[in-house]
Amino acid sequence: MSKPLRIAIAGLGTVGTGLIELLRDNAGLLERRCGRAIEVVAVSARDRARDRGVELGGIEWYDDAVGMARQAEVEIVVELIGGADGAAKAVCEAALGAGRSVVTANKALIAHHGTALARQAEAAGVTLAYEAAVAGGIPIIKALREGLAGNQIDLIYGILNGTCNYILSTMRDSGRDFDDVLEEAQQLGYAEADPGFDIDGIDAAHKLAILASVAYGAELAFDKVYVEGIRHVTALDIRFAGELGYRIKLLGIARRVEDGIEQRVHPCMVPLDSPIALVEGVYNAVVAHGNFVGTTVFEGPGAGKGPTASAVAADIIDCARGAMVPTFNVAVGALAPMRAVDISRHRGAYYIRLMVMDRPGVFADIAATLRDEEVSMEAILQRARAPGEPVPVVMTTHDAAESAMRRVIERFAGFETVVETPCMIRIEQLPR
Amino acid sequence: MSKPLRIAIAGLGTVGTGLIELLRDNAGLLERRCGRAIEVVAVSARDRARDRGVELGGIEWYDDAVGMARQAEVEIVVELIGGADGAAKAVCEAALGAGRSVVTANKALIAHHGTALARQAEAAGVTLAYEAAVAGGIPIIKALREGLAGNQIDLIYGILNGTCNYILSTMRDSGRDFDDVLEEAQQLGYAEADPGFDIDGIDAAHKLAILASVAYGAELAFDKVYVEGIRHVTALDIRFAGELGYRIKLLGIARRVEDGIEQRVHPCMVPLDSPIALVEGVYNAVVAHGNFVGTTVFEGPGAGKGPTASAVAADIIDCARGAMVPTFNVAVGALAPMRAVDISRHRGAYYIRLMVMDRPGVFADIAATLRDEEVSMEAILQRARAPGEPVPVVMTTHDAAESAMRRVIERFAGFETVVETPCMIRIEQLPR
Repeated sequence: MSKPLRIAIAGLGTVGTGLIELLRDNAGLLERRCGRAIEVVAVSARDRARDRGVELGGIEWYDDAVGMARQAEVEIVVELIGGADGAAKAVCEAALGAGRSVVTANKALIAHHGTALARQAEAAGVTLAYEAAVAGGIPIIKALREGLAGNQIDLIYGILNGTCNYILSTMRDSGRDFDDVLEEAQQLGYAEADPGFDIDGIDAAHKLAILASVAYGAELAFDKVYVEGIRHVTALDIRFAGELGYRIKLLGIARRVEDGIEQRVHPCMVPLDSPIALVEGVYNAVVAHGNFVGTTVFEGPGAGKGPTASAVAADIIDCARGAMVPTFNVAVGALAPMRAVDISRHRGAYYIRLMVMDRPGVFADIAATLRDEEVSMEAILQRARAPGEPVPVVMTTHDAAESAMRRVIERFAGFETVVETPCMIRIEQLPR
Repeated sequence: MSKPLRIAIAGLGTVGTGLIELLRDNAGLLERRCGRAIEVVAVSARDRARDRGVELGGIEWYDDAVGMARQAEVEIVVELIGGADGAAKAVCEAALGAGRSVVTANKALIAHHGTALARQAEAAGVTLAYEAAVAGGIPIIKALREGLAGNQIDLIYGILNGTCNYILSTMRDSGRDFDDVLEEAQQLGYAEADPGFDIDGIDAAHKLAILASVAYGAELAFDKVYVEGIRHVTALDIRFAGELGYRIKLLGIARRVEDGIEQRVHPCMVPLDSPIALVEGVYNAVVAHGNFVGTTVFEGPGAGKGPTASAVAADIIDCARGAMVPTFNVAVGALAPMRAVDISRHRGAYYIRLMVMDRPGVFADIAATLRDEEVSMEAILQRARAPGEPVPVVMTTHDAAESAMRRVIERFAGFETVVETPCMIRIEQLPR
């Protein structure tokens, strides 16, 4: 039996506490699996006095996490502070600078600074690991970087934000509107008091940027991810989606196209028989398509104490076993620039909903606009008629250019008969 | 860039040919990911003359696979011959004996001889890897052994045989009966000419034994797996399952219970909202429940040239990167004996279908039997009535003891009014 693996934990919030519980509850198991014990020898957090429900006796306490990362005699520093910059970044840099491996659950940090940190880790001959940063308990980084490493990946996409998936699932189940369900999600602890990070798609975009880097062996390019959140999705659109045979999901999609890689996060209509249409509530799911394996689907809890601790522990176990692979699937020096393809060059099918005053000539104007922009309509629906009241007109298109669709929407918005901002949601045909 | 990884391949059937295609098509990618090229330098198969559609020029040919395993100057011997014993076993033993790592897709070999082979590999300081042996392209061995390694696993189950899943899915879709659909599956190449290995559950049992060993850190105990195939599942039972809100799936289940580990392969009725109810056709899916992560689901193609080659390549890449972990999740010396719990001690819910001549007293006899054996009925269905013709009587039970259910079935079978062997299918309530 080798000597114990000594680790330090920076940040004792939900995940940090969960990790200590896991390492305590499963200690015997982990020792057998790693061939050595895992010992938490140092911790750092803001408030020493707070009762976290776990025993911290015998563990060295540091008020200064950066000092701990530099000084504690450990092989691994686990960063669970959060945030793209500030203390989290300083802790990771200090740890790597001192020749210690870093395990982190911090998607914002990796999405923004992952390449630089990986370069630092590689130069020091240590590990930077971040399984917990994407899709919570689902071991998707390992699956992509190792389990599917024999494949050229053509497409990777997923439900990457449990808050949004919970809101959209609940809106569909209950027929209630966005604001109402968001408020409930906040009360249940599924959404933050300041929910923008989740519902505006930024959290999903961080995760997508990381997945894209691993899948395509390219430098992280978070700033190139097209991001659109779910605030504009209405109960009405969810109902129409159902009538048309779709579910609305906030997806992160990184697809290899002719000129490079599309990276986009936005609400999508997905057919009911696509692999992730039925993934509901706070669950996450990721689908990867490789040139030999075909389509693989990975599903599980996307956040929370236990699942995130499980993912952090997996990285620690890899370190303990000495089984490490390149941070983003290839050595940092071999990472290609991300050949990001702008959303304006996307082609796909679209759903459009207009609220129109039902007057003669409306349909002719709509049809002429589509003809002018060379957009071919697949279907059009107009259900209720209410004289003097605006009624929804819904249409779906065949594959069309995003740039043309934007002009279409702009022209629709200018119609005198159209009384609200038109709603446009992309339709994704996802291969099984 | 390090020197190339040299490998030898024993067996050039579908999977061997697929592996050569993968290593050729994705060569540049693999070299970047591994930091070194992967070179096939030796191959062995029965028929040298056969055109396999891949270029073998420059690769040394061996008529004798065992001789190749012993002599070829390679780091890895890939065993793709198949079969639990004979040439496959001899090749692996020879390779490990000569200090070479072994990568295999052979579930029968691992299920029967995995512990001994792992011991030999460990003693030699080399790797025995078998990702392709379970669930085709799904990287489930890696997920269990590494991605979820922080967890105590309580339950692992899956759809592990694509042939059976295809047959059951098609029976449901078409309403056709078993023999008819089997014949079609044979014509389509989804079932072998001699289908027993698949449809009698043996193939799934091999895979389950391997999953159980990895999940529970216990020695393989294939001979302790309870195995029941799908020959007795009728279109009628599939229809009743639908009416009751279930799908019938052949599952392999390894569950931690009070006294040890249940390992069983048999047709199951699973609720429509369980994670794998909607996995259809030749797809496989595995669900693992860990004490911190909760429920995770892994789905993908369970067999075929590309998916299997993808899994074999993943093991080769691990070797090339030097990232290896214990064969069955713990060192061989630390494997516990499998504390197998016999099926006779199973408790669960059951579906029973009897074909009865509808005469007075039948229901009283049924009820009295259940009362005597302390089995509590949940529901009973009798639809069609046809004087003089046998009619189906279907019942479901609350949780009951398998031993009691077997006595119940035996007594039912003895009723004068029961005209066919009663059908019993276990109902599984699978946690989300």
